[in-house]
Amino acid sequence: MTKKTNNPEVLNASATQILAVAVLKLFPQAKIATGQVSSVGFFYDFELPESLTPENLPAIEKEMRKLINKDYHFEQQELALSEAKEIFAKNKQPYQLELLEEMKQEGQEKIKLCQSENLTSISIGDCLSSAREIAPDGIKLVEISGAYWKGDKKKKMLQRIYGVAFKSKLELKKYLAMTRLAKERDHRKLGKELDLFVSSPLVGKGLPLLTPKGTAIRQELEKFIIEEEEKRGYQRVSTPDLAKVDLYKKSGHWDHYQEDMYPPINIDGQDYVLRPMACPHHFILYKSKPRSYRDLPIRYAELAKLYRKEQSGELSGLIRMMSFTLADAHLICRPDQVEEEFKKVLELVQHVMRTLKITDYWYRFSKWDPKDKKKYVDKPKEWEKTQKLMEVILKKLKLDYVQADGEAAFYGPKLDVQTKNVYGKEETAFTIQIDFDLPEKFDLTFVDEQGEKQRPIVIHRSSIGCIERTLAFLIEQTAGSFPVWLSPVQAVVIPISEKFNNYGKSVMETLQKDRLRVEIDNSDESLGKKISQARQQKIPYLLIVGEKEANTKEVAVRSRAKGDEGAVKLEDFIKRIRREIKERQ
Amino acid sequence: MTKKTNNPEVLNASATQILAVAVLKLFPQAKIATGQVSSVGFFYDFELPESLTPENLPAIEKEMRKLINKDYHFEQQELALSEAKEIFAKNKQPYQLELLEEMKQEGQEKIKLCQSENLTSISIGDCLSSAREIAPDGIKLVEISGAYWKGDKKKKMLQRIYGVAFKSKLELKKYLAMTRLAKERDHRKLGKELDLFVSSPLVGKGLPLLTPKGTAIRQELEKFIIEEEEKRGYQRVSTPDLAKVDLYKKSGHWDHYQEDMYPPINIDGQDYVLRPMACPHHFILYKSKPRSYRDLPIRYAELAKLYRKEQSGELSGLIRMMSFTLADAHLICRPDQVEEEFKKVLELVQHVMRTLKITDYWYRFSKWDPKDKKKYVDKPKEWEKTQKLMEVILKKLKLDYVQADGEAAFYGPKLDVQTKNVYGKEETAFTIQIDFDLPEKFDLTFVDEQGEKQRPIVIHRSSIGCIERTLAFLIEQTAGSFPVWLSPVQAVVIPISEKFNNYGKSVMETLQKDRLRVEIDNSDESLGKKISQARQQKIPYLLIVGEKEANTKEVAVRSRAKGDEGAVKLEDFIKRIRREIKERQ
Repeated sequence: MTKKTNNPEVLNASATQILAVAVLKLFPQAKIATGQVSSVGFFYDFELPESLTPENLPAIEKEMRKLINKDYHFEQQELALSEAKEIFAKNKQPYQLELLEEMKQEGQEKIKLCQSENLTSISIGDCLSSAREIAPDGIKLVEISGAYWKGDKKKKMLQRIYGVAFKSKLELKKYLAMTRLAKERDHRKLGKELDLFVSSPLVGKGLPLLTPKGTAIRQELEKFIIEEEEKRGYQRVSTPDLAKVDLYKKSGHWDHYQEDMYPPINIDGQDYVLRPMACPHHFILYKSKPRSYRDLPIRYAELAKLYRKEQSGELSGLIRMMSFTLADAHLICRPDQVEEEFKKVLELVQHVMRTLKITDYWYRFSKWDPKDKKKYVDKPKEWEKTQKLMEVILKKLKLDYVQADGEAAFYGPKLDVQTKNVYGKEETAFTIQIDFDLPEKFDLTFVDEQGEKQRPIVIHRSSIGCIERTLAFLIEQTAGSFPVWLSPVQAVVIPISEKFNNYGKSVMETLQKDRLRVEIDNSDESLGKKISQARQQKIPYLLIVGEKEANTKEVAVRSRAKGDEGAVKLEDFIKRIRREIKERQ
Repeated sequence: MTKKTNNPEVLNASATQILAVAVLKLFPQAKIATGQVSSVGFFYDFELPESLTPENLPAIEKEMRKLINKDYHFEQQELALSEAKEIFAKNKQPYQLELLEEMKQEGQEKIKLCQSENLTSISIGDCLSSAREIAPDGIKLVEISGAYWKGDKKKKMLQRIYGVAFKSKLELKKYLAMTRLAKERDHRKLGKELDLFVSSPLVGKGLPLLTPKGTAIRQELEKFIIEEEEKRGYQRVSTPDLAKVDLYKKSGHWDHYQEDMYPPINIDGQDYVLRPMACPHHFILYKSKPRSYRDLPIRYAELAKLYRKEQSGELSGLIRMMSFTLADAHLICRPDQVEEEFKKVLELVQHVMRTLKITDYWYRFSKWDPKDKKKYVDKPKEWEKTQKLMEVILKKLKLDYVQADGEAAFYGPKLDVQTKNVYGKEETAFTIQIDFDLPEKFDLTFVDEQGEKQRPIVIHRSSIGCIERTLAFLIEQTAGSFPVWLSPVQAVVIPISEKFNNYGKSVMETLQKDRLRVEIDNSDESLGKKISQARQQKIPYLLIVGEKEANTKEVAVRSRAKGDEGAVKLEDFIKRIRREIKERQ
C-alpha cells in the first residue's frame, strides 16, 4: 500500500488535476479554465460542449477513480512562458493562453505546468507524485454551478465543478457528516427559522435586515462590549460613516486599500467615500486639541459601521456583507505604554472569548510582505522595528502563535485571533494591530515632560469583532440555543388552559417590568403542543402556570438545560434569571 | 405719524426694495439679481462694480434712511412677461431677464414688478404703500458675503447684503440684543468651547465628529428614547443604511423625493443609494412573514442613520448635516387602531418634550398641495380621506394647531411639532404622519378575523427627533448647563491640596463604579482656580475634599443650582445624584 500524504492541499490539488483529465476524457472538446484548492476541497472551471447537472457528476467521479486505480502520474515542470504558449496553442486551450498573456503583461517569465497524457494545464498547486496516494473512494464531486470567467459578468459563463479529496473513505465519510451537520447549523438557515434576520433582493445582496429578535441579540452584544470597554477606560465617540476622499488620500487608504473600498460619490463637485475603517476619523478627534503626555493613553471606541467591498458573488448571510459594524477602537499611546496597552487589549479579547465560550482558536502573528509595494507602505526599517516590538511583546506574554507573511495591515503588523467556522473554514475573529505609519501621516503628537513634541504609537483593535459576524458565529456555535442573556425570548409563559391566561399575563408583565424579554403563549393549542413549539424556538425557560401556581404565586419551570425543575416562587425565578443574565452565564 | 404695519414680512420686503434703490443710487452700473425675505430679515444679491466690505454698509444704510425720510413710494403692478422683458432689456438688467426667461420656460405668463424712480425689479414680496411705515432708525444692514448666482459654483459670484427692518428703533435694539445672546448660545460656538463636537475640512462640511463628551450626551438621549419606546411596546430593528435604487423606485422616493437624495453609487453594475428614510426597510421586515390581525399594531423602531441632501452652503453644526440619526419608527396598524396609536405617539412626544423641558412649541397640521404633482402622489381621494381622518383625530385630542398647505410628506399628511431655535427661526422638531400610500405600494397586508386579506395603515413618527439636532437644541437651550442625567461630566472631585488627592481618587473611583461620569482635578492650581474652571465647564456638582471630608468619608458639595451645600456622606450624595439621574430631572 502506498503511503498517503498528510498535506490536504496537495491532495486536493492532485484531485483537481485528475478531475481535469477525467473531464477531457469524457469531453475531448472541453476547454480548461482555472480552479482553486484549499485544505477542505477544490473547484475547477470548464467550458463544456453541454450543460451538466449534478446527475452527471457520478460519471465523472467514476472516470476519476479509474485514473487513480491506473496509478496516474503527475509531471510538474517549469517552462518559459513562450514554450508554454506553444503547447496551449497546439492544444487549443484559449483560457490557458489568456492567463499566460496576463502573466507576461505582469513581467512573469516562467510558469509551472502540470502535464500528463491528454492534459497540460497551468499548475494551481503542488501535486502528489502518484495518484495512488488518494483513496479512490475518498473523492467526491459535491456540486456544479455556473461561474463567469474571471468573475466578470460580461465574460463567458463557465461550469464550475466542486469536489473534495481525502486519503481514506473513512475521512470522506467524516467530512460529509460534518458538512451535513454544518448545513443544519448554517446561520443563514437558522437565521430564517429562528426569525433573526431577513434578506431581500429589493434591498440588495449582502444587506441583511435584522428582525426584532436578531436586534435583541445584537443589542446585548453591544451592551456587553460597551460595558467591558468602559470598565477598561475607553471613551466612546461617534463619527460619520463617510468622508471626503481627501481623508483617505492622507491616510494612505486610497493608495493601499482602494480595491476594498466602494467607488466615491460625487456631491456638488466633491468626492465622498463610505469609510472602510474608522481610524482616520478618530485621529481627527485626537488632533482637535493639544495633547500632553498626561492625557495618554487615549482610547477611542466606536461601534463603527464600515463599508468594505466584497465580490458580489460572495455576499451572503451575516458573514460577507456590503456593510458591517465593527466594535472598533484606537488606543493612542506613548511608546512606553504600548506593551501595557497591548496586554490589556489581549486581556479584553480573552475575556470576550471566555464569555462567548469561544474555545477553538489560535493566534496568528501577521507580518508584511516586503515585495508587495501596492499593499504595504514602503518603510522597511519601520516594519522591521515594529514587527520586532510585537515579537518581543508576544514573547513576554508567552503566547503560542503561528506566523503569516503578507497578512499585516498596510500600516503595521497584527496579532490575529483565528477561529474556524462550522464548515471548518479559517476566519479572523479579532485583531490587534500596532501602527507606526498613520501617526506620522496625520502628524499626531503629544507634548512630553520636557515640553517637546513627540510621536505617539497607535494600537488598532477589535474586541468583539464585527457584531454581525459574531452573531453568525454564535448562531452556528449554539445552533440557536443562545445563553439566557443573549436569547431573543428569555422565557415564555404557558398557561395550562384559558382559565389561567390572566395569571399568565400578570407573570409576563411582572417579568417585562424587570426588562426581561418574555412572551406568553395563550393560544388555544394543547399544553403539549405549546411546550414543543417553545422548545423548537429554543427558549431557555418555559414557565407553566395552572391553578396551583396561580394560588401560590409560583411558576413551574421547565428549563432548556435541565428539563422539568418543578414550581418555584416567581420572585425566586426572577432572582435566578437576573443573576444568570448579569453573569452572562 | 404713519400707522406702522404689523406684518414683518411686508416690512422686510419693503426694506429690500429700498436697499436695491439705494444700491442703484450709489452704484448706477449695479446689476440686481434676486433676494429673499423672512419674518426676521432679508437679503438681496447684486453684481457690483467693486467688492464691498462691512465698512461700506453704513453708507448704504444712510442712503436707505434718506429714501425712507423722503417717503419713498412702492408701486407694484402685474405685467405680461413680454412687457417686463422690454423694461429689463432697456435697463440692462441681465439677471432679471434670465429669471423672466425661466418663468417663460415654466409656462408662466404674468409677473409682478415693483417699480420706482430708478428701479424696476421682480417683486420678491408684498411691499408697504409708503416707506414711512418703516422707522428710519429701525433698519440695519448686518452682513455682506459672496453668493453664487443660482447657488451654482460654476456661475458668477455676486455680493449678498443681509439686513433687518423693524417698525421702531426699540424693536431693532431688542432684536440685536437677542442676536447677541443667540450668538453666545449658538451650539457651534458652545460645542467647541465645551468640547462636544469637532468639524474638519478634511472629513467634510456637514459631517461633525462627536467627542467623548458629545457622545456621552448622545448616548443618554438614545438610552432615554429606547427605554421609553420599549415601555410603549415598540420593537427595535436594525436595517442597512443603503439599498438598491429599486427599493426607492418601488416606494416612490425616486419619483417624489429624489432631489433630497444623494446620487447613486454603482457597484458591480448595480445602483445603490444611501437611504433618506427607513420606511421601505421596515416594510421589507413586515413582509417577511404573514401577519394576522392579532399581530397588529407592529411598532418597528430604529435609531436610523439617514442621508438627505442639503445645499452644501447650508451645511453647518449639528443642524444641517450630510447624514443624521433619526429616532425613527413605523407603526403598522389596522384601520381601527390608527386613532389609538396616534394618541399614544402624541403622548410619547409630549413626554419627551416635558423631559427635555421644551415648552415653546406649537402644532402644525401639514397638508398636501394638489397642484404639486412632483412632490405628492396623485391620489386626491385618498388625500382628502386621510386628511379628514387626521383632522378628526386632532379634534378629538382637542389640539390647537395651525394649518400649512404643501408641507405634507409625499405619501400623507403630518402633524408637526414646531419650535423656534435660538435665532427665532422656526423648525420642525418632531413629526407624526399618516401614510395611505406606501402600504399599497409595498402591498402590505394582514389577515382579518374572517381570513380575508386587509390593508394596514402606517404611522411614521419621530419621537426625540433627529438626535444630533436635539443635541444642538439642548446646547442652545441650556447654554451648556445640561441637566445632571445629560451632563458629560456629572461631578468633579476637587482635593483642596495634594495631600487629599488619594482620598479624592477613591471618591472618584467609588462614583465611577456606580457608572457615574466623574473626573478629578488634582492639578497644582489653587482651590479657587479649580472651582472656577469647573464652573466654566458647567459641571453640575463640585465635590470638594479636604481633611475633614477624608476623615468622615464625606464630600463638600457645591452644586451648579444652589452653590455651597456643605458636607454630606458620600453614600448620601450617591443616592441623591442617582435619583436625579433616574428621574431625569
